[in-house]
Amino acid sequence: MRILLDVMGGDLPPGELVAGGVAAGCRHSIDILFVGDPEIIRTALRGLGETAGGRFEVVPSSEVIRMDDPPVRAVREKRGSSLLVGLTALKSGIADAFVSPGNTGAVVAGSLFTLGRVPGIPRPGLLAVLPSLRNQDFLVIDVGANSDCAPEHLEAFALMGASYARSVLGIAYPTVGLLNIGEEDTKGNRVANETFAILRNGPLPFAGNVEPHLLLTERPVDVVVCDGFVGNIFLKSIEGGISAFSTLLRRSVLRNALTKAGAFLLRRSFADMRQVFSYKRRGGAPLLGVNGVVVIAHGRSDAEAIGGAIDVARRQAEAHLVQRFSKGLEGWALDGG
Amino acid sequence: MRILLDVMGGDLPPGELVAGGVAAGCRHSIDILFVGDPEIIRTALRGLGETAGGRFEVVPSSEVIRMDDPPVRAVREKRGSSLLVGLTALKSGIADAFVSPGNTGAVVAGSLFTLGRVPGIPRPGLLAVLPSLRNQDFLVIDVGANSDCAPEHLEAFALMGASYARSVLGIAYPTVGLLNIGEEDTKGNRVANETFAILRNGPLPFAGNVEPHLLLTERPVDVVVCDGFVGNIFLKSIEGGISAFSTLLRRSVLRNALTKAGAFLLRRSFADMRQVFSYKRRGGAPLLGVNGVVVIAHGRSDAEAIGGAIDVARRQAEAHLVQRFSKGLEGWALDGG
Repeated sequence: MRILLDVMGGDLPPGELVAGGVAAGCRHSIDILFVGDPEIIRTALRGLGETAGGRFEVVPSSEVIRMDDPPVRAVREKRGSSLLVGLTALKSGIADAFVSPGNTGAVVAGSLFTLGRVPGIPRPGLLAVLPSLRNQDFLVIDVGANSDCAPEHLEAFALMGASYARSVLGIAYPTVGLLNIGEEDTKGNRVANETFAILRNGPLPFAGNVEPHLLLTERPVDVVVCDGFVGNIFLKSIEGGISAFSTLLRRSVLRNALTKAGAFLLRRSFADMRQVFSYKRRGGAPLLGVNGVVVIAHGRSDAEAIGGAIDVARRQAEAHLVQRFSKGLEGWALDGG
Repeated sequence: MRILLDVMGGDLPPGELVAGGVAAGCRHSIDILFVGDPEIIRTALRGLGETAGGRFEVVPSSEVIRMDDPPVRAVREKRGSSLLVGLTALKSGIADAFVSPGNTGAVVAGSLFTLGRVPGIPRPGLLAVLPSLRNQDFLVIDVGANSDCAPEHLEAFALMGASYARSVLGIAYPTVGLLNIGEEDTKGNRVANETFAILRNGPLPFAGNVEPHLLLTERPVDVVVCDGFVGNIFLKSIEGGISAFSTLLRRSVLRNALTKAGAFLLRRSFADMRQVFSYKRRGGAPLLGVNGVVVIAHGRSDAEAIGGAIDVARRQAEAHLVQRFSKGLEGWALDGG
């Protein structure tokens, strides 16, 4: 297994991402191909007691697409960027997957531009793996690749998400729900209504509409489908609720000696919770539907988070999802996907 | 001040809502007109040591619109429902406001059908008042009245929200933000992009795009604008994040004697948090843009929550928002609207 890692496009310094790549490479016996400024990468490797060559290689790039670059223009103009160089290397077949903590819009645009779509898939979808209180993760697709979606795009997200649930998470017959503002069949906007009709008549076990406030606690389905705008709002709102609650708790806990003592006794509980909801543990979001294994890591990814993203990429490559998709999503229910 | 209260349409028994109405009436010297089954209301009043007549009146209705009734059809067919009877009474001028914990879609449809829109306002918007960690509430509009919105609808939401912030919350020059999936000007879907352009050229202090994960903690603006589908997803996702976090904390805390002791020391902190994030404290969501003061309370409202909703209705009626809107939203920035 060989994985390309873009160490330039994230919020943290490249050295941090090199450290994450080295740790993941050693843990899983994966070759890591670091894409970025060769001097920076070599220095970072030396600092970790490693050298380029053998398990760790350097793929040189000369510029960087920044978080605030307009995606489509950046992809057109910055051909020497770590993102485009990495995707081109993936396309050439020298590696099995590409991981980037960069500008999401640019990774989507660059992947479409360089790799193209799997035939038959109208739009790629960004998939998030979320924790639940039922001790089993669930999937949400799309969480930000497409802001304006037609119902047939959501249909493809459902099929890709179910295929991922089956091949990567090992759920034999994954159930699908439509993210909506009420459980009744007729709830929601036009796209939701039309998607509901398509999914109800489709091949997947469709559980109907699911509401956002129950997903983490109840985990009603294995795969939640939505357009990328709504999915991204959902993810960030969940994050906002958790962040507000924990900030307020921290403040309240620091009020006096007794509450501090209480917090000391609960320190493991607090650490457990941080662990469950940490994006570092989940690592990265696979961009499904493009012709290659591409995983988008959180922009603020540190070494640990990048290790998680590399692991997501490894599992997806091992499941041969792209090849499965190429055989046609429609046959999913028949051929065991 | 006279306020109509629908005691039939909520999830809790009418007696609970009558109790909330009586408490609110006594606290604020408001006449409460209970809309519902007269026998049930009279029995509930007797149980509280009150009688109909004087401060508490009974407005009889004969049927109920349920949470799972299809809104438009229910409004057409159930003319004798507490919802329609209450709205008709409001329209007749015998009271200043109407509060219902019923089916949101039916309250919106019934209000449009019975009261109509304020001239010049294309769509009503449901406004949520949310807490923040900056010790000041902020507003989100629309959180569920309209699932499919055009940019000009969001423009009207911005003007109504700002007017509410000024007249009810006392913020002289409220700032407005557009709920979006990134801060950059070009982020988001088509509706967001077009709304951004309208708001940037409009009369309100526009702060650009705001992201959901920062709203509760940073409170970047006074008024957040979005379509009703996205706004409802936002609200329920925030609720989901908080609920998952607190459930997990509770579980973790019950693990052993030491963690239980820790929880005991932190019990006031936990109570404080429940208080801050409780919908009971916030009470109800005003439906702005219809020709009358209508407040939608949470379906699960108990006596305390209904008291909060009545308070929201009272403050809105005192601010004469409907009259202000009738003078035209466009003049907002000029006439101190």
